[in-house]
Amino acid sequence: MKPLDVLQQSLHKRVLVEMKGGRSYRGVLDAYDQHLNLVLSAAEEVVGGEVTPRTGLTLVRGDSIVYISP
Amino acid sequence: MKPLDVLQQSLHKRVLVEMKGGRSYRGVLDAYDQHLNLVLSAAEEVVGGEVTPRTGLTLVRGDSIVYISP
Amino acid sequence: MKPLDVLQQSLHKRVLVEMKGGRSYRGVLDAYDQHLNLVLSAAEEVVGGEVTPRTGLTLVRGDSIVYISP
Amino acid sequence: MKPLDVLQQSLHKRVLVEMKGGRSYRGVLDAYDQHLNLVLSAAEEVVGGEVTPRTGLTLVRGDSIVYISP
Amino acid sequence: MKPLDVLQQSLHKRVLVEMKGGRSYRGVLDAYDQHLNLVLSAAEEVVGGEVTPRTGLTLVRGDSIVYISP
Amino acid sequence: MKPLDVLQQSLHKRVLVEMKGGRSYRGVLDAYDQHLNLVLSAAEEVVGGEVTPRTGLTLVRGDSIVYISP
Amino acid sequence: MKPLDVLQQSLHKRVLVEMKGGRSYRGVLDAYDQHLNLVLSAAEEVVGGEVTPRTGLTLVRGDSIVYISP
Repeated sequence: MKPLDVLQQSLHKRVLVEMKGGRSYRGVLDAYDQHLNLVLSAAEEVVGGEVTPRTGLTLVRGDSIVYISP
Repeated sequence: MKPLDVLQQSLHKRVLVEMKGGRSYRGVLDAYDQHLNLVLSAAEEVVGGEVTPRTGLTLVRGDSIVYISP
Repeated sequence: MKPLDVLQQSLHKRVLVEMKGGRSYRGVLDAYDQHLNLVLSAAEEVVGGEVTPRTGLTLVRGDSIVYISP
Repeated sequence: MKPLDVLQQSLHKRVLVEMKGGRSYRGVLDAYDQHLNLVLSAAEEVVGGEVTPRTGLTLVRGDSIVYISP
Repeated sequence: MKPLDVLQQSLHKRVLVEMKGGRSYRGVLDAYDQHLNLVLSAAEEVVGGEVTPRTGLTLVRGDSIVYISP
Repeated sequence: MKPLDVLQQSLHKRVLVEMKGGRSYRGVLDAYDQHLNLVLSAAEEVVGGEVTPRTGLTLVRGDSIVYISP
Repeated sequence: MKPLDVLQQSLHKRVLVEMKGGRSYRGVLDAYDQHLNLVLSAAEEVVGGEVTPRTGLTLVRGDSIVYISP
């Protein structure tokens, strides 16, 4: 198994994405690429405990990501 | 679907671009490339709640971008 | 021996992963690649002494890693 | 249209260049390359509201740029 | 002589590894690669004067390293 | 004209080199390469208004440079 | 002349190496490579005015270097 296989298994499932700088996102993983760029639907942004819903598809840039978990 | 397909679908639509360092932009997505460099028209810059309109086409450098959403 | 051989030897064993910015993870190493992207199962996140368990497989991005030890 | 086409259209026109770290430049865009390295003539540097004129051609390194607009 | 030759000469000897952010490691150098990724055995981590021993082999990521000395 | 042509024109002339982190150098540009690594002779370093002369040839690493101007 | 030629001329001579983050080294330049990784002998580390001698050969990682001068 390679690390990106975990993203393949998480497709169309809800994930938590922790970013550099203390921001995080929760949403359904709709797409990814080898740079760990992600597309989330039904996403929520969490900054300092405050939750902001995001409508539509959100593209998260891979190089700001620290980890991705279910 | 790949992450950049989301940008293709967002062409000529209004997007929110969140940057590293707490800055964000709203504008119509007129162009993009594989580095996530973006061109926005009718753009507004938001820093600490203060909104500054930008006339003409704004080129936003991809490596400062955290996420892009509608 | 090359550095990545240590990861090969640590497969399916518990590791400590120290991240830039003071965060760390403990978990079972299930996969890795040449960028040091890791997959941990049964992972715990430790930030400032506070431990948060993570269910399922966690993908940790290699470029935020400082060191990996048993 | 690709993002660098905007720079082509801005050649020999006045642009605003916002840098990482709060610095910005205004000047006439005389040259650019694919790394977004720029050459500005008749440039002014703005740091914290203070404006410093720069005589001659200024080479601005692309990887410190956040955005470029007219 | 090339810089990596110094690592070849330090193999199986005790080294001090100073990291970005004020952390350092002491340990026996068991392996390295061209990215300066290192494997240390019998390692100790030093942060702010506090020493923490690490059992087993520690993989230190090269891009966080400032210098390596005997 | 390409951005590096400006460096070609500045060879053997006095330049100001502004660095990330608030440091700057003044000196005669004796050499450059495509990474914007520079060699300055008769250089002065300026940090927080304090000027330190540097004898001999100073090699300035390109990736710390913000801009170069006459 | 190219910037790395300056390092060739400085081989076996004493150099000052200024690092990102306010640290600096003085030592005899024994080796370098195209990434500006350096080997210093008889090196001293200077942090905040405090000088620490380093015995043996010190390998300094190029990407933390700001400038090198005699």
